[in-house]
Amino acid sequence: MKRVEFTAREALNEIVHGRLSSEELISDCLRQVDKLEEEIGAWAFIDRTKVIDQARKADTRRKIDNSSILPLDGIPVGIKDIFDTNDMPTENGTTIHAGRCPKDDAAIVRLLREAGALIMGKTVTAELAVYTPGKTKNPHDLTRTPGGSSSGSAAAVAARMVPLAVGTQTNGSVIRPASFCGVVGFKPTFGTIPRAGVLRQAPSLDQVGVFSRNVLDSALLASILMKPEEIYGDTLPLPEIDISLVEKSFSTNPNLGFVRTAVWSEASTITQKSYLDFVNGQRPVPTEIELPSICDQAVSCHRTIMLCEMAHHYNAIYTDNREEISPMLLGMLDEGRRVSLSEYLDAKNLLTEVSGVVDNALKDFDAVITPATPAEAPEGIASTGSPVFCTVWSLTGVPSISLPVLSGESGMPLGLQLVGSRGSDSKLLRGAHWLEKIHYSLND
Amino acid sequence: MKRVEFTAREALNEIVHGRLSSEELISDCLRQVDKLEEEIGAWAFIDRTKVIDQARKADTRRKIDNSSILPLDGIPVGIKDIFDTNDMPTENGTTIHAGRCPKDDAAIVRLLREAGALIMGKTVTAELAVYTPGKTKNPHDLTRTPGGSSSGSAAAVAARMVPLAVGTQTNGSVIRPASFCGVVGFKPTFGTIPRAGVLRQAPSLDQVGVFSRNVLDSALLASILMKPEEIYGDTLPLPEIDISLVEKSFSTNPNLGFVRTAVWSEASTITQKSYLDFVNGQRPVPTEIELPSICDQAVSCHRTIMLCEMAHHYNAIYTDNREEISPMLLGMLDEGRRVSLSEYLDAKNLLTEVSGVVDNALKDFDAVITPATPAEAPEGIASTGSPVFCTVWSLTGVPSISLPVLSGESGMPLGLQLVGSRGSDSKLLRGAHWLEKIHYSLND
Repeated sequence: MKRVEFTAREALNEIVHGRLSSEELISDCLRQVDKLEEEIGAWAFIDRTKVIDQARKADTRRKIDNSSILPLDGIPVGIKDIFDTNDMPTENGTTIHAGRCPKDDAAIVRLLREAGALIMGKTVTAELAVYTPGKTKNPHDLTRTPGGSSSGSAAAVAARMVPLAVGTQTNGSVIRPASFCGVVGFKPTFGTIPRAGVLRQAPSLDQVGVFSRNVLDSALLASILMKPEEIYGDTLPLPEIDISLVEKSFSTNPNLGFVRTAVWSEASTITQKSYLDFVNGQRPVPTEIELPSICDQAVSCHRTIMLCEMAHHYNAIYTDNREEISPMLLGMLDEGRRVSLSEYLDAKNLLTEVSGVVDNALKDFDAVITPATPAEAPEGIASTGSPVFCTVWSLTGVPSISLPVLSGESGMPLGLQLVGSRGSDSKLLRGAHWLEKIHYSLND
Repeated sequence: MKRVEFTAREALNEIVHGRLSSEELISDCLRQVDKLEEEIGAWAFIDRTKVIDQARKADTRRKIDNSSILPLDGIPVGIKDIFDTNDMPTENGTTIHAGRCPKDDAAIVRLLREAGALIMGKTVTAELAVYTPGKTKNPHDLTRTPGGSSSGSAAAVAARMVPLAVGTQTNGSVIRPASFCGVVGFKPTFGTIPRAGVLRQAPSLDQVGVFSRNVLDSALLASILMKPEEIYGDTLPLPEIDISLVEKSFSTNPNLGFVRTAVWSEASTITQKSYLDFVNGQRPVPTEIELPSICDQAVSCHRTIMLCEMAHHYNAIYTDNREEISPMLLGMLDEGRRVSLSEYLDAKNLLTEVSGVVDNALKDFDAVITPATPAEAPEGIASTGSPVFCTVWSLTGVPSISLPVLSGESGMPLGLQLVGSRGSDSKLLRGAHWLEKIHYSLND
């Protein structure tokens, strides 16, 4: 097995047992970057010399004191280029911030370094983490979008350039690229991962998420970033990820649900059929649930809040750098500026109501299956595809994960999305891990 | 000992052992109401026949099946008259809602009934849970305010009309009346108690709190209302109250802090001296901490958010019932209507920043001592007193508790406020329980 195929946990296991050095792992990952980056364009910035140097230092430290193994010791991680890093530029996917070099690490970058992870580099984001794509192409088909806005993070993991990456989701920006690129994307409960030092788009909705190639790697990475005893800004001290629970088998099969949501008709015929076949192939067949009709307003409610908050936070660039903003984003900012305070507060109240209803619908299930994207990655790289199957879950802040177990019209990856109730992240991951295992055992 | 002097836990213990019936307890509480209510005015509504009838039913149920004891079996609780009840009027402290009879119970009322509590009646609130007082007077001195807005709840507990009561705090509405009335008032972490069916004043700040005569009773009542596995609206699934931890002794003394905050100069000389004497009397002396200067903006930030959200939620009455709104509230609504969307969103961002800083300052302590009110209850009942020592904690949503262990200029009660970091409610209660115990052992 090639080292770049290692999951983070496999690589860690090799490192712990002295069969692999961080330097070897990083070198292989960099070779993969050298081989594929020109085509895929996953990275906004990599400093090869520095990351190799850090790997050597980690190897030396472990040689001197083998008891000093850290939770992600020597494992490379890609970071979406909207998280501040004190040793690399953070350009937020816009020429307006070209060459921007923050003084401080974002909170999650600090947590990763403390956990021994090596920051491989900054991954490409859509313009200001919204919709207008960067240079990244889908590793499975270079004529197609990788999805966005965490495009580079998903593509880098899919292309075996790095086993782990971090992204963000305000609407569909973790689940969608994970679905299109055929990797696991996990967005924990809203507010559980600190956002200090992250580009602020729409604080009521902005959420940090992770990418990996299997569920346990996502659980491991998220467990580093979710530290209930450490509070930064508006981080919530919710229960931390319990990896032993995630790995625990079920005595009977998990209690799964299935929900089409109000936007089901936007899924392609093949997507609908894939989901129905998948659901009906489970034993017992997951209970189909219908969300109360108030949830039909989720998409418009989300749009009001996102555009209004985004117009506020991007006001300075709107005023000073209008010519460097894409027409699509400019249109969204114009729309956001027209939202009134009263419309905004009504939307926030609606968010509360929808959250209660959604949590209530989800709480008795280990995981609820629902489409991740309307279809496989669309052709062309001018857009990042529709986030509409993520919206109600982003709005309500419940945890969700996309598993690379389905395929679309052309055999491209199509993610299976699972959602859980707020704060039940470990339970959701456990259900996801179980589904992943039976899927791969069926296909072996 | 008179039954009305029982704490809820003492009464429960008597009930469990068959030495007391709910009917006897309720009857004694009602006699206390009969004796004092005309002077104190704690209640907006009581249906004596109904609560006695419910007590008899609880007694009968327990006689038939003694294993059916519920966590608050047969214990009377007073409910601030801004929580909807399906069998009593809910008038929100305003003539505008006179005779309003909601169809459904508020979530917390349902939780209380499920726990076997008997809803004794509705307690007086300031007008729409803001500042303009209702009829309630301070049980310790009828010429003084009981504080507000949860005036009736605090006074009813102080006057031994009921061992437990529920209130809300948007600024100082639990801690302040607890301080003035000489009872324990506990406001858990923001969002941990469901707000479905509660008057919505300023959702970013509105918090449910409890009143009792000692810390363990507050812990018991809060544990009924904080159900992390049950999600309603925007309730957060934070760790539930762990009463065994609250009762656990310290091997060395707890790690206490002391913070004056930016408004220290607004405390009276006697209050300042009482606090400094108390703090300096502890062994070890609590570490004095200073909040970073960004916290100096807490009061203005809180005002912007509160008035803006209140103006939005009270817009219908502002438009349709202006003549029934007090001049003070009208002025606040006028001010709130002038807040712009941009000012509001800036204040929300500031709230996030201040929250991070405050949590960081508090997280290493078991509890941090800080004034509850500038002084004892002021004379006169035209205002409810200043909430300014509660503002930064209400803004940031950290848990706080007021203990009736100090006294003011005229020997009136003066609460000792303790605060903890977000989500560390059990730890805070443990520190409070310890301080309460040593205080009473010193004074016995």
